[in-house]
Amino acid sequence: MNFADRLISEIQRKQNPTCVGLDPRLDKVPPSIQRVVLQKHGKTFKAAAEAIYALNCGIIDAVADVTAVVKIQWAFYTIFGLDGVEAFIKTSNYAKKKGLIVIGDTKSNDIGSTATPYAQAYLGEVDVFGTKHKDYDLDALTISPYLGSDSIVPFAKECETYHRGIFVLVKTSNPSSKDIQDIEIPLEGAEHGSARTEKIYQRVGRLVVEIGKTMVGERGYSSVGAVVGATHPEEMKILRDLFPTLFFLVPGYGAQGAGIDDIRHAFDAHGNGAIINSSRGIMQAYESDPKYTPEDYKDAARAETIRMQTELKQMLGW
Amino acid sequence: MNFADRLISEIQRKQNPTCVGLDPRLDKVPPSIQRVVLQKHGKTFKAAAEAIYALNCGIIDAVADVTAVVKIQWAFYTIFGLDGVEAFIKTSNYAKKKGLIVIGDTKSNDIGSTATPYAQAYLGEVDVFGTKHKDYDLDALTISPYLGSDSIVPFAKECETYHRGIFVLVKTSNPSSKDIQDIEIPLEGAEHGSARTEKIYQRVGRLVVEIGKTMVGERGYSSVGAVVGATHPEEMKILRDLFPTLFFLVPGYGAQGAGIDDIRHAFDAHGNGAIINSSRGIMQAYESDPKYTPEDYKDAARAETIRMQTELKQMLGW
Repeated sequence: MNFADRLISEIQRKQNPTCVGLDPRLDKVPPSIQRVVLQKHGKTFKAAAEAIYALNCGIIDAVADVTAVVKIQWAFYTIFGLDGVEAFIKTSNYAKKKGLIVIGDTKSNDIGSTATPYAQAYLGEVDVFGTKHKDYDLDALTISPYLGSDSIVPFAKECETYHRGIFVLVKTSNPSSKDIQDIEIPLEGAEHGSARTEKIYQRVGRLVVEIGKTMVGERGYSSVGAVVGATHPEEMKILRDLFPTLFFLVPGYGAQGAGIDDIRHAFDAHGNGAIINSSRGIMQAYESDPKYTPEDYKDAARAETIRMQTELKQMLGW
Repeated sequence: MNFADRLISEIQRKQNPTCVGLDPRLDKVPPSIQRVVLQKHGKTFKAAAEAIYALNCGIIDAVADVTAVVKIQWAFYTIFGLDGVEAFIKTSNYAKKKGLIVIGDTKSNDIGSTATPYAQAYLGEVDVFGTKHKDYDLDALTISPYLGSDSIVPFAKECETYHRGIFVLVKTSNPSSKDIQDIEIPLEGAEHGSARTEKIYQRVGRLVVEIGKTMVGERGYSSVGAVVGATHPEEMKILRDLFPTLFFLVPGYGAQGAGIDDIRHAFDAHGNGAIINSSRGIMQAYESDPKYTPEDYKDAARAETIRMQTELKQMLGW
């Protein structure tokens, strides 16, 4: 099944467009897990990797029945070297075993001939002396677009072959996203000398739509989607209106400051077209209510995921 | 010592501004290595990783006394899963043991709070339960700029603390680099209504110079450098003239089609300011001369590195 169709169908089945971001921070691992890994492995990468994997399994167990998608941020794994990468793979496999769709947040990018091994490794199959191996086997990936279309197409090809998805950075949630993404440029295709303008993020949005146009599924969305930050509600509305086939992965809700009113325009009239990611807001939900201790992180994460679900359903009229 | 100063001093000591790109391709591993790894590990990632590591060691041994810098492209390692990442780390360590400066070609990018773990992992130190660990310990890294300055600054901070370097993608060697990088925009700081324009890659160049301005060394270059493709000689000249403190990492020479005339303007009047990368052109040099077999890849790589050195020295008047 087309990735976008599968994504929408899972979101509707769970009745929740929340994406749980697995950005594990070692200093947020509860003492009970820390004690076990330190006793086994000392203050090593192996201990750190085991700790974050145990933390992730707890979160996944707590939310698997109430959400459809998790996002695993590569940075928080690669920081612990080889052991960290192993924790990334194990986390992905555990989440898939629990029926979740897994997005690898790698912000991958390279020239065509080099993007191909990335795409094969993360989304497709790898050739090893004539035999085919599934490697990371992620459902979807984030992609950074500065190199242009020939750096994105190799990923899109794997999406088409293996029914996977990508989300290309279009308008990101961080303050400096304005540096390049908000630069005003002449509108593409407008008459010469016309005063009509657009912004770089809109141009990139159009590029992404063009690359994904052969992968629009039965539900009207392409498997080549976009990252659009919740911290920019106006730009989000512009993108939603311009590009009706573009599925949004929306970071920035919660810990980065955006709330429910900021993400309204990520969705179409049926409440489709977006998933709203929360990472720290869910993983560290125990910190925002004095009734919890760090050991209650699972209960707190589940409660926060359900709170988000309720809030989103109410807004969407589901 | 400031990274840029160290880089220039090593290039001058070896009398060679060539960067050897370690992009190992499994189908280019000579039969003698293939036999050994297949016998030991079968058609597995472990075999593949051992094969590319052996290949790399051969290349490093062949060029370590005639060049100063190697660039390791993450894609060609991560494709073989955990074993591949291990081969990346081992390759980096082997090259450093042989006295080479190691650039990790990861094209890293993320929002500030997430760029920090990347920067710590690849360039600095990682905290594990209160103890400090050096992790990848690379000398330098490539960075992709679409997210803007707050995605680059965390890397620059580690550069300042640990005397490392970064090269931010400014004008890349691939054909689609035009999609975003060549878009014409009003010149920053020009009077309102002025007809003066610049291109996105120039704006990004200025951003990179600004971020690196506190890290300009005694030789006049900053440890925050730029990736500028050899396939765009005109843009290279513009960037060289605009930004005299910006050190260039130049891909695209050789297999991607650029020759000596295309890279002339990467250098300043003293022949400083750039390293010229060749990956396939050196690793697969045996393919371009019928006197070599795949088993001669080391001799061929050495000969090609020396040929590049001779060509560059002649052009630079060294």
